Amino acid sequence: MSQYVFGVDIGGTTVKLGLFDENGNILDKWEIGTNTEEDGKHILPDTAESILNTMKEKNIDKSQVLGVGVGAPGPIDDAGMVYGAANLGWDTFSISGTLQELLDLPIKAANDANVAALGEMWKGGGKGYKNLLLVTLGTGVGGGVINNEQILTGTCGAGGEIGHMHINDDETEICGCGGYGCMEQYASATGVKRIAERTLAVTDTPSVLRERKLTAKAIFDAVKEGDEMAIDIAKQFGEYLGKSLASVATVLNPEAIVIGGGVSKAGEILFEYIKPPFMRTVFHGCKNVEFTLATLENDAGIYGAAKLILG
Amino acid sequence: MSQYVFGVDIGGTTVKLGLFDENGNILDKWEIGTNTEEDGKHILPDTAESILNTMKEKNIDKSQVLGVGVGAPGPIDDAGMVYGAANLGWDTFSISGTLQELLDLPIKAANDANVAALGEMWKGGGKGYKNLLLVTLGTGVGGGVINNEQILTGTCGAGGEIGHMHINDDETEICGCGGYGCMEQYASATGVKRIAERTLAVTDTPSVLRERKLTAKAIFDAVKEGDEMAIDIAKQFGEYLGKSLASVATVLNPEAIVIGGGVSKAGEILFEYIKPPFMRTVFHGCKNVEFTLATLENDAGIYGAAKLILG
Repeated sequence: MSQYVFGVDIGGTTVKLGLFDENGNILDKWEIGTNTEEDGKHILPDTAESILNTMKEKNIDKSQVLGVGVGAPGPIDDAGMVYGAANLGWDTFSISGTLQELLDLPIKAANDANVAALGEMWKGGGKGYKNLLLVTLGTGVGGGVINNEQILTGTCGAGGEIGHMHINDDETEICGCGGYGCMEQYASATGVKRIAERTLAVTDTPSVLRERKLTAKAIFDAVKEGDEMAIDIAKQFGEYLGKSLASVATVLNPEAIVIGGGVSKAGEILFEYIKPPFMRTVFHGCKNVEFTLATLENDAGIYGAAKLILG
Repeated sequence: MSQYVFGVDIGGTTVKLGLFDENGNILDKWEIGTNTEEDGKHILPDTAESILNTMKEKNIDKSQVLGVGVGAPGPIDDAGMVYGAANLGWDTFSISGTLQELLDLPIKAANDANVAALGEMWKGGGKGYKNLLLVTLGTGVGGGVINNEQILTGTCGAGGEIGHMHINDDETEICGCGGYGCMEQYASATGVKRIAERTLAVTDTPSVLRERKLTAKAIFDAVKEGDEMAIDIAKQFGEYLGKSLASVATVLNPEAIVIGGGVSKAGEILFEYIKPPFMRTVFHGCKNVEFTLATLENDAGIYGAAKLILG
């Protein structure tokens, strides 16, 4: 009799769900809205209901379900306890315990960025690597560390939060985390836009960027067109990100660094700006790193969540 | 019938050996000279001979030995392959394979700094913690990461090499690794002495340090006496080390940071200079870290090596 796994990725707007067979092939995927009302107390019951409905529709018996893997924002420890997730309204409680009561199935939960890293290792841009770092350059910078094919969770699930490495003592603007000079203030989609605004403001040098909406994609498009200002901006971005990744790689000695998130849509050209400062500053024993692009996009979470169960 | 484990710590001058019972109690320890002649090819045979002699003396049969754990310098992967160790004369070869042939016993090998971290977790300053970072402030800065009670080896055994994190773009002196601006250029025993020399050279401010031999201990002794220059030097040292450790902690989310090596003999006063910059720059989710001092000194290696086998 066939065996199945559910992978769940809980976000602030939608909950993504995937049904996988025991070999990790995806059979179906769908999403439901995230109801953050009343401190997000409906999110897990809604998720459980969606899973139970799917099992009924597809005639899947409880005995055929190996388990449900869950990725969610916030620090989540290895026991499935979440220590608050502001954008869901969640305080501290056990995700695993709650879902287990609702579904009577084995549950595993982990931080969404870490789960995405596991997904990319399994089926995406990190396929074939056992030790990797996923860096998600979106509105912020997320990070997930895979060590020996396992998530590096850390003590309370904050492992891999590389976006909040402090890299600049002179920063005067505050980061979303409350700190100053975090890596994500320069290397996220918002960060590279901020570098561009600052750079354009201090010169009169002509640039196609002065007539375009400033996005990470627009900046790297201008780089491809040979725009001098855009190249200068890309170099600044690359210095911040490349040197930060070198520090991380000197700690972790990964095989691969997988770049995902909105900024990664600029493509391989990113590596031209990240790699030189990386290679200049990384410990020589950790130089042998492959840079790749993430490939699963919004599905990385459901894949990684399923992999939590499939082990 | 009693069961035993050998723990071996191979250094440039001596090979330290320990005999442990199956519960991890140390029964005996001794050392032999490290013969680095002929590319260090005698080191493992000498070690094997010493183990066999001890077994004979103590009437220990091969069937009673659970295995031999080995810590050695250089990057060593999970299969026990060393990728060169300059101070032993070693090139790339399998430590595990070589010793297994000589002893016909189960062998596990890992990098010495990582093995020391495992030892401190098991029986030393990191006892009770599952996730920790050992920082050894000696001639250089060594690092070992324990994640979920296991060594974080990395791809080729260079995991935890935090002494070679690049932290200063403006450094003009070269580090032993060939890089510039590595953390160990400021936070090692040599590094803090260098900070002191630079600081004393640029002012005429009176200081007891002007009449003393500049060592890490002398500097922190002067700090305890209230010497203004020494306090300034300690602050510079603390800024470099505290901020570097904050970056590492933001990646790993450890429970504890254990400080060892010669500089740690200054004692708890170190924390007064490391903690403020650490707390100022670490990601808030990773703030909850205990700082402790290593306690096993030169025995950390043999303890950790035994623990490799005891698991």
